[in-house]
Amino acid sequence: MQKARIGVTGLAVMGRNLARNLARHGHPVAVHNRTPTRTKSLIEEFGDEGTFLPADTPEQFVASLERPRRLVIMVKAGAPTDAVIGEFAPLLEPGDMIVDGGNANFADTRRRESALREQGIHFVGTGISGGEEGALHGPSIMPGGSAESYAALGPLLEDIAAKVDGTPCCTHVGPDGAGHFVKMVHNGIEYADMQLIAESYDLLRHAAGLEPAEIAEVFRTWNEGRLESYLIEITAEVLAHTDASTGRPFVDVVLDQAEQKGTGRWTVQTALDLGVPVGGIAEAVFARSVSGHAALRDAARNLPGPSRAGGVGSGFADAVEKALYASKIIAYAQGFHEIQAGSAEYGWNIDLGAMATIWRGGCIIRARFLDRIRAAYEADPETPTLLTDDHFAEAAGEAQDAWREVVATAARLGIPAPGFSTALAYYDSLRAPRLPAALTQGQRDYFGAHTYRRVDREGSFHTLWGGDRSEVTA
Amino acid sequence: MQKARIGVTGLAVMGRNLARNLARHGHPVAVHNRTPTRTKSLIEEFGDEGTFLPADTPEQFVASLERPRRLVIMVKAGAPTDAVIGEFAPLLEPGDMIVDGGNANFADTRRRESALREQGIHFVGTGISGGEEGALHGPSIMPGGSAESYAALGPLLEDIAAKVDGTPCCTHVGPDGAGHFVKMVHNGIEYADMQLIAESYDLLRHAAGLEPAEIAEVFRTWNEGRLESYLIEITAEVLAHTDASTGRPFVDVVLDQAEQKGTGRWTVQTALDLGVPVGGIAEAVFARSVSGHAALRDAARNLPGPSRAGGVGSGFADAVEKALYASKIIAYAQGFHEIQAGSAEYGWNIDLGAMATIWRGGCIIRARFLDRIRAAYEADPETPTLLTDDHFAEAAGEAQDAWREVVATAARLGIPAPGFSTALAYYDSLRAPRLPAALTQGQRDYFGAHTYRRVDREGSFHTLWGGDRSEVTA
Repeated sequence: MQKARIGVTGLAVMGRNLARNLARHGHPVAVHNRTPTRTKSLIEEFGDEGTFLPADTPEQFVASLERPRRLVIMVKAGAPTDAVIGEFAPLLEPGDMIVDGGNANFADTRRRESALREQGIHFVGTGISGGEEGALHGPSIMPGGSAESYAALGPLLEDIAAKVDGTPCCTHVGPDGAGHFVKMVHNGIEYADMQLIAESYDLLRHAAGLEPAEIAEVFRTWNEGRLESYLIEITAEVLAHTDASTGRPFVDVVLDQAEQKGTGRWTVQTALDLGVPVGGIAEAVFARSVSGHAALRDAARNLPGPSRAGGVGSGFADAVEKALYASKIIAYAQGFHEIQAGSAEYGWNIDLGAMATIWRGGCIIRARFLDRIRAAYEADPETPTLLTDDHFAEAAGEAQDAWREVVATAARLGIPAPGFSTALAYYDSLRAPRLPAALTQGQRDYFGAHTYRRVDREGSFHTLWGGDRSEVTA
Repeated sequence: MQKARIGVTGLAVMGRNLARNLARHGHPVAVHNRTPTRTKSLIEEFGDEGTFLPADTPEQFVASLERPRRLVIMVKAGAPTDAVIGEFAPLLEPGDMIVDGGNANFADTRRRESALREQGIHFVGTGISGGEEGALHGPSIMPGGSAESYAALGPLLEDIAAKVDGTPCCTHVGPDGAGHFVKMVHNGIEYADMQLIAESYDLLRHAAGLEPAEIAEVFRTWNEGRLESYLIEITAEVLAHTDASTGRPFVDVVLDQAEQKGTGRWTVQTALDLGVPVGGIAEAVFARSVSGHAALRDAARNLPGPSRAGGVGSGFADAVEKALYASKIIAYAQGFHEIQAGSAEYGWNIDLGAMATIWRGGCIIRARFLDRIRAAYEADPETPTLLTDDHFAEAAGEAQDAWREVVATAARLGIPAPGFSTALAYYDSLRAPRLPAALTQGQRDYFGAHTYRRVDREGSFHTLWGGDRSEVTA
């Protein structure tokens, strides 16, 4: 009986497309779904794309896999994932691999990896980005788990991943939860990037007074330069689209309440645990949640503000491009800082340049820009921040005046630009010769005897604020 | 044998001062500490302040309490709290109360309350704010737990709490974790408030070129107006202070790396779970963590930027005062929004106006301003945001021009003002007739088929972006 090289259970659209991608690359793939109708329809519709081995039961499914078994689960994150693991793990043997291709929280992945390792099973939490289309035509793949499991899985995954300049958008990220962690930060960066694009659009629309079709043209031009990326490209497409039923610009008929799933939020929550400032991602998550608070917005709509129109010169679109590029550098620098901190915290030893490399294709944030990040980490793998890389420092320097002008204009005209603003404030905080954090420490010592350090000698000190205000060593 | 009305175990400075506060108010108080030396020194030093019943063992301690027993634990949050509960709970009887006066995470408090309720014991997670001095002279007290436990505990706690206009700064917040939740948000607001003060100082110092002693005078003046508060008062004290060993302004010899414990971070993480935008608190937490990243700051110190000096007029200090007041309104509006959302999520039925009332004295954020918040919730207990209250809307309107000018000036001069900026962006987001979230939804539908809603009819829709771009009902 022919054995499958790999199996996919969970045949909703992501799982189905991943199975088809594997089959199309010549890998015999076992397919299973809790309700067999999905398995059947996959075979009926796409059975001629390659070798599929359909299985009706978990036992059949597992029996159809060559050993060591490679079993990919594509189900909802959370309890459904645990349920499927609980169903299949007892059927496996030491050396077998379970690949979780869902959007799991990395902490869950760490827990599952640890539990399955006890049974000798490799649990490979794997970030997969690119949506349905990516799953079918080549996603960006971020597998965690053991190096041993990557030796057996890597070639298959690299086979079906997107390729850029012949390099697959897949690499072994690091042990246990590293893959899902990196996927989470990828999504956080995606939030920040989308927010910056949204603010750019909003400023061009309301400060410069351009129409959506005109703004689409601006984005098309940008997409021919250093901002070239999937998100800029589709922004132009969305803005150029006309709603058929009303004849109005599509963007004007869409309800302006953005939704979100969990990964942006997780990225911020995790950054807070790691002590990494990610204002760009946080403001993006908050901007979505503000937009969704309809009652709050209705109540506040008549609060006083300036006229939103005008007063910007003809070079405003160029200024916004510079602000967008500079702010984007910040958002990525913050995201990579979070990966660096997570890697240090959990001992993952993640190659940051390699993460930029595998995001160049297949995923939502794919962009020309990522080559620059890869180059920056090649030049200095230990750099504490991307910002000091020659290219990025130069770009920030060159963007300076425009960036500041855009933030100031947004403030004056009353057009919210939380993403641009937080990016600039982060940049200026890092550059600051002195921060007012010294005052904060003084206050904390005053009201809570929390002590402070000094600029001129080692140690912790406390001032007797309630007494004669002399200083004591803490 | 005389029984104690209440007992305190854990006699570090907070516990000791709380016990003394109780004794000074005429309540016989049992005292216990794991190492009895602390108990002994309390009696030796302060035994004449009231009736203390020292106990060397948990059994003695519990036996010395009148029934139902009121047992206050003042130990570190986390595992030490669980350990102490585990030690004492078996010695208690149904109807007894354990008051946790530490800085516990409200989720832990919910877990503990639920477990102890099974045994018939009331677990009263209680926020206590005001530091050592507050504990001794009158803190702000935020008890959660059952209404039944408050009936037995409330009179004692109200007795030792701070009083403002004769009203005690203590009330029953709500069931289970409500007290610790409100204390957490209190601390988050404190972070935001301190960050806004730090930015005000920084702008006066570097944009207006004032010296610390001059800025201390500015804060003293502010403290005579609507900004009157403990934090403004101590800011003036800290800024006026001269370091004895160098003769330099104290604020210039303090290392500018702010530290933090967990509650600011928790406030943001919880807000993210609840879908409440709290940019003011998040930027404050991030500003502290940026300041502490010494290697990052060293690397970035030479990034290009504008001259930090000058170009501001003589009215700049007044403009900063307005920006500070307006931004402070935003920070509190966000914090109260979080309490409102937490209350709804956990069914706590928290009286928001009462929270403003009990924060007027004893705690770090005590301020004249809180009377305004109380009045706003008295006028409309169901208001979705403080911003629409007449007083606050008027203040925001009046602050407008100055606020925008301060944010623009900070951007232009390269002085980081993340707190002012995020507050203004939040304000402008709520006011916006349309947000670019519509574009975000369009992008999400494009790359992930996440669907969107329309402004002109009900339902969820998807555009066939990869096809003929017609719209289908999702």
